[in-house]
Amino acid sequence: MARFKLTIEYDGRPFVGWQRQANGLSVQQALEEAIFKFCGEDVRTTAAGRTDAGVHAAGQVAHVDIARPTLPDTVRDAVNQHLKPLPIAILEAELVDDGFNARMSAVQRAYRYRIVNRRAPLALEAGRAWQVMRPLDAAAMHAAAQHLVGHHDFTSFRAAECQAKSPVKTIDRLDVIRRGDAVEIEAEARSFLHHQIRNIAGTLKLVGEGKRPPGWVAEALAARDRAAAGPTAPPDGLCFLWVRYIAA
Amino acid sequence: MARFKLTIEYDGRPFVGWQRQANGLSVQQALEEAIFKFCGEDVRTTAAGRTDAGVHAAGQVAHVDIARPTLPDTVRDAVNQHLKPLPIAILEAELVDDGFNARMSAVQRAYRYRIVNRRAPLALEAGRAWQVMRPLDAAAMHAAAQHLVGHHDFTSFRAAECQAKSPVKTIDRLDVIRRGDAVEIEAEARSFLHHQIRNIAGTLKLVGEGKRPPGWVAEALAARDRAAAGPTAPPDGLCFLWVRYIAA
Repeated sequence: MARFKLTIEYDGRPFVGWQRQANGLSVQQALEEAIFKFCGEDVRTTAAGRTDAGVHAAGQVAHVDIARPTLPDTVRDAVNQHLKPLPIAILEAELVDDGFNARMSAVQRAYRYRIVNRRAPLALEAGRAWQVMRPLDAAAMHAAAQHLVGHHDFTSFRAAECQAKSPVKTIDRLDVIRRGDAVEIEAEARSFLHHQIRNIAGTLKLVGEGKRPPGWVAEALAARDRAAAGPTAPPDGLCFLWVRYIAA
Repeated sequence: MARFKLTIEYDGRPFVGWQRQANGLSVQQALEEAIFKFCGEDVRTTAAGRTDAGVHAAGQVAHVDIARPTLPDTVRDAVNQHLKPLPIAILEAELVDDGFNARMSAVQRAYRYRIVNRRAPLALEAGRAWQVMRPLDAAAMHAAAQHLVGHHDFTSFRAAECQAKSPVKTIDRLDVIRRGDAVEIEAEARSFLHHQIRNIAGTLKLVGEGKRPPGWVAEALAARDRAAAGPTAPPDGLCFLWVRYIAA
């Protein structure tokens, strides 16, 4: 039995999210079925982040144990063949030691939330960004975001269904950057709560539109009440970028 | 009657190309039908570039004459409503003078050809880039590309069906740039021949793979023979970026 670390890219649109669910095809199920077609083993994969329905990944990481002796590049290429035509691709497969756990060993995760700020609908990025029509003040959004950086109780930004034991998390970086007609929110933390980034994006959007001042975000955080912050932004704009491990 | 300049974005995948054709839906037909739904006028649009099936646009430009008096922003928003759910969006509509012609008045056109250079299939960019597995030497491709910059007879890079009167064109800029696992070819000229950029991309790829030296591209150009250059790259990687006009 060998453990493989898989770095995975996917377009979240056709999936019910990472995790297996009764109501539709998940990325996890599609991946595990492709691995079964390759080696005949009924495996279970564990991912660094259980992305929601419609959320994308450029560098999700999962681990899986496979009994059949195989070179890592063969795992990647063969499983990719079996994944077709689904928009899931294993970018890299690496042999790792049995102690490696894609979820538990992760020390840093990075996400990007992409807003396209214009009147016209999205033709090239439909389903891949959040279209916001009203002009956004990215500098105000960035200033507001800085209130969320650090060690805080994020109850105000946590989904009701969140299964984390504690609402306390540490955001290491939360930058809001304008890039042409896009506004991107870049977030880094050891781990995030369920919907945390989408709730932050929905909150920062209100600041960007001038409906709330940047300081309101500090108040929303301090309230420890989901109703105090803004609405949940759609999944379209969210992409799981990368995961860092101490030793993989 | 007023003339509007429309700047248009589209995902080329579901279309037979810009131009109306009997065998399927073109961007032009979809756009003209949406304009008809808006104002009841059976218009004809003229575009700066007649992109092929599967080729994308971030800034195609077309002009159209509309009799119904309308503000430019209303044209944009109303036609965009009628274009749904097709992946075509009018980014901007501007009133222009009757002498403006999207095709004839254009003084510079820019395209980008995007290659993703990796083993894994494309999940996030399926249909939107050309996947090339063998490692590409972008510096060699760039060196090769410089042989094509300037005023030349591009017979070797011209489709058999090309309708241009002359194969002589001037390429002002042809840069090949590596960006992470992508290699992008950026091309600027007053105008291009049919398939010119795709034929250049297919040729430069052979240099990038080390199958041909950079100097071979000069020989292929000098041969004035389509068979002397490389194959036509797929449409997926090509995007029409922008058009410049002296006065619009």
